[in-house]
Amino acid sequence: MMSLNIYGQQLDSRLLIGSALYPSPQVMKQAILASGSQVVTLSLKRQNPAEQAGQQIWRYLQEIVTEVNGHLLPNTAGCKTAKETVTLAKMSREIFQTDWIKLEVIGDDYNLQPDPIELLNAAEQLINDGFKVLPYCTDDLVLCQRLYDLGCQVIMPWASPIGTGKGLMNPYNLETIRLRLPDATLILDAGIGKPSDACLAMEMGYDGVLLNSAVALADNPVLMAKAFGQALQAGEQGYVAGIMPQRQTAHPSTPTLDTPFWHQP
Amino acid sequence: MMSLNIYGQQLDSRLLIGSALYPSPQVMKQAILASGSQVVTLSLKRQNPAEQAGQQIWRYLQEIVTEVNGHLLPNTAGCKTAKETVTLAKMSREIFQTDWIKLEVIGDDYNLQPDPIELLNAAEQLINDGFKVLPYCTDDLVLCQRLYDLGCQVIMPWASPIGTGKGLMNPYNLETIRLRLPDATLILDAGIGKPSDACLAMEMGYDGVLLNSAVALADNPVLMAKAFGQALQAGEQGYVAGIMPQRQTAHPSTPTLDTPFWHQP
Amino acid sequence: MMSLNIYGQQLDSRLLIGSALYPSPQVMKQAILASGSQVVTLSLKRQNPAEQAGQQIWRYLQEIVTEVNGHLLPNTAGCKTAKETVTLAKMSREIFQTDWIKLEVIGDDYNLQPDPIELLNAAEQLINDGFKVLPYCTDDLVLCQRLYDLGCQVIMPWASPIGTGKGLMNPYNLETIRLRLPDATLILDAGIGKPSDACLAMEMGYDGVLLNSAVALADNPVLMAKAFGQALQAGEQGYVAGIMPQRQTAHPSTPTLDTPFWHQP
Amino acid sequence: MMSLNIYGQQLDSRLLIGSALYPSPQVMKQAILASGSQVVTLSLKRQNPAEQAGQQIWRYLQEIVTEVNGHLLPNTAGCKTAKETVTLAKMSREIFQTDWIKLEVIGDDYNLQPDPIELLNAAEQLINDGFKVLPYCTDDLVLCQRLYDLGCQVIMPWASPIGTGKGLMNPYNLETIRLRLPDATLILDAGIGKPSDACLAMEMGYDGVLLNSAVALADNPVLMAKAFGQALQAGEQGYVAGIMPQRQTAHPSTPTLDTPFWHQP
Repeated sequence: MMSLNIYGQQLDSRLLIGSALYPSPQVMKQAILASGSQVVTLSLKRQNPAEQAGQQIWRYLQEIVTEVNGHLLPNTAGCKTAKETVTLAKMSREIFQTDWIKLEVIGDDYNLQPDPIELLNAAEQLINDGFKVLPYCTDDLVLCQRLYDLGCQVIMPWASPIGTGKGLMNPYNLETIRLRLPDATLILDAGIGKPSDACLAMEMGYDGVLLNSAVALADNPVLMAKAFGQALQAGEQGYVAGIMPQRQTAHPSTPTLDTPFWHQP
Repeated sequence: MMSLNIYGQQLDSRLLIGSALYPSPQVMKQAILASGSQVVTLSLKRQNPAEQAGQQIWRYLQEIVTEVNGHLLPNTAGCKTAKETVTLAKMSREIFQTDWIKLEVIGDDYNLQPDPIELLNAAEQLINDGFKVLPYCTDDLVLCQRLYDLGCQVIMPWASPIGTGKGLMNPYNLETIRLRLPDATLILDAGIGKPSDACLAMEMGYDGVLLNSAVALADNPVLMAKAFGQALQAGEQGYVAGIMPQRQTAHPSTPTLDTPFWHQP
Repeated sequence: MMSLNIYGQQLDSRLLIGSALYPSPQVMKQAILASGSQVVTLSLKRQNPAEQAGQQIWRYLQEIVTEVNGHLLPNTAGCKTAKETVTLAKMSREIFQTDWIKLEVIGDDYNLQPDPIELLNAAEQLINDGFKVLPYCTDDLVLCQRLYDLGCQVIMPWASPIGTGKGLMNPYNLETIRLRLPDATLILDAGIGKPSDACLAMEMGYDGVLLNSAVALADNPVLMAKAFGQALQAGEQGYVAGIMPQRQTAHPSTPTLDTPFWHQP
Repeated sequence: MMSLNIYGQQLDSRLLIGSALYPSPQVMKQAILASGSQVVTLSLKRQNPAEQAGQQIWRYLQEIVTEVNGHLLPNTAGCKTAKETVTLAKMSREIFQTDWIKLEVIGDDYNLQPDPIELLNAAEQLINDGFKVLPYCTDDLVLCQRLYDLGCQVIMPWASPIGTGKGLMNPYNLETIRLRLPDATLILDAGIGKPSDACLAMEMGYDGVLLNSAVALADNPVLMAKAFGQALQAGEQGYVAGIMPQRQTAHPSTPTLDTPFWHQP
């Protein structure tokens, strides 16, 4: 299949994976390798750079992405204002040596959804400062359009709130975004609970999926990571192969006696 | 992963595939090979044994299943009574040299659903006559239980009406059947429209999926067949790996500053 | 609106209501009156005729239906075989002085669903014995068709399992039954959780709704009963008034400047 | 039931109704009267004040709302920028002699959704200018929160795109808004297709529903208007009466022999 294009970088896998909540660093590494993913998100805020443990885990993650010929994608998880987000993004660029940034600006403590206003504000500042911004946003078409117009080549609408595993809450909105932004790289981010959710996103024509909890919280994260890798491929192939339209009435597979099957409707 | 057990036969693939509606015999063959399936359904009723074309296609299908070390699964598509079904099953056993039979007894011309009464009746007669019966049935738990009690080791409830591509219409019913018949081999049959449908069935703990239109009517049947093969593997792995439970409220992937991630809830 | 026809009896209300699980007999009576229902189900099996309490509650229910110019509808809740069901139906006819019988034959202890085979068997026997049978059944079109062909003028498919409040699990099946049995009186029975569920059933063209738990288990059963009465009327009127078709794309309510609104598309 | 509070005005009906797309002005009037609604939206932009027809329809609508002791609610349908919206709002205030304004700022021609940024901008300007703003917005909690913080006492999230009749696309989002903004007056606006949709919104604890196409485009708008009026009452009563929780497993309505029903669980 075609490769995933993230700001000009061609990647073999369409899965982006998080580095939190795993039972151990070793399991995390095995899961990332099993997933086939080449983009691993991590948070500067979570791991304090002044502490030894933080540096160790960064070095460990850096080794992993090097091993898979991939990329670290720092995120701004936990930020609540554009100002705080921009500051953290700049620190992340320096420490992780990449101008990629997954932009998270949390707007509510209950559903942990992005704040559309602060997000746009932060995205504009960071793009002007040379960042390659991957914004995590709600499934609001106008918000996605504005982020795209600002220069975000990659847009990452949510499926449902982080960590809920609810899957695609609003397929109509997600399909509309795909339809109206045909040239954007669209990554479904947050709320994915099971491989069929990721498969469905790809069948809609999404370019990729970003997830974390669904793998890290599985009984067997490594096997689940592999399952997601396959589910994305299945969904992408299904999209390319052309999914049959739904029909209201039943149609027999084997309709008529004595008709060669390759002439049947 | 574990193999699929159909009346004692161990099969590597959990996909069962139909042989109708393809653009050509060649495309059909390529699609079957790409799917990885080792069980191919066909209908005696559709192809008239008195005609040359029918015999040719049977020989062709026989070659394909031999090539994949698989099995033909004759079906009784189009039958409307137990009597007619039993007659056709016996003819199929003789011609195709197998005691496997996919039992279809159509009860309504609009939704092409199985007739539960005639189905039970036919299943009983055929089991008494030594057949290994794979009944296509509705998602009615009591019907499935009765078929199982009669001796059907494999039960094949529908997802939705044949050829509609509507996917899993009633997940609650399907989950209940899985829960209540833990020892039956459950194959989801009919109505599957896209790879994510098949993936979802496997995530529910189903043992396999049988489909035809979704592959045969795709723009690219061969690629779609491959997609389904992968989707089933993804779903099975997801089931085995343990899918995270859905949660009502959001949970951050990266919750707390300065906490080693492998100690976070 | 038009009246509900139950075996030739014209009723003003399209709601049929159960008599179990209420906080007290007094609340039950008030709820029945508030609902507007003229058909009240009750179970001979639950109340032992040999006991004083059973006789008292029957007399009480008889008084209520007399007050609303309505009818008792005995049911066979708890029966598991045709034989047991037929026996109980006959006892009920004698004691409650009515040839109406709501036929329940439970086929599974988990989902409490009807057993389609025993149900057909019992229905046939009772119709031959002069009963007016109202069968509680699953949403299986062929089963409904067979019950209708046996002489059941009223058919009562389930929305979802008894007492779950899950509402309409399989709208496609329910719509298909309505489409294919235009002359049957169709009552949606079991699984209704909230007024909008009942409203939706009526919007599909169902003739009525039977419920119990949703009213009896509400915080305020009397107010909930009134709510259901109104919801049924709203749904019936909506069905008669002609519901707009769903559209995939948005259409402005106020489309064009300077066009008189009664000329706009 | 309790009355609806719109900026201190107490209204008996919880339905707000549009004035476009009716077959004739006479049908519109009858539909409004049948609905029981006391708030009628209209658009200055649609009817040109320089034309006689526009003035006539306004006078007609003014007469109707006077007759029902209600209120006109001018809207800014068709506006695409905050500037244009503010200008139209000010013209509407002068012409219709009310400081109520339904704020619409369309952000996309395909789904006709509100532009969250321009909407906030316009709302802020109009509140500062003394308007009582009723913003039509998407189901984005943070957007709703910001509108509320600006001083919008009434918030009107969409159910689905205008004129689609798709009903409640994202119940989770709508429930979250209700949960997080307990003191706001929440009106569900746009996308309502049938009475059960409106009933469901009220069961979630919404304060009201605004609709237009579902009534105006019905075969019988007057009867449909009445149906919606009843559906809202049913839903509100259901909410107040306390809807039973959904349960995963079935529970018999008539569980145990010989137990008085008012002692059963």
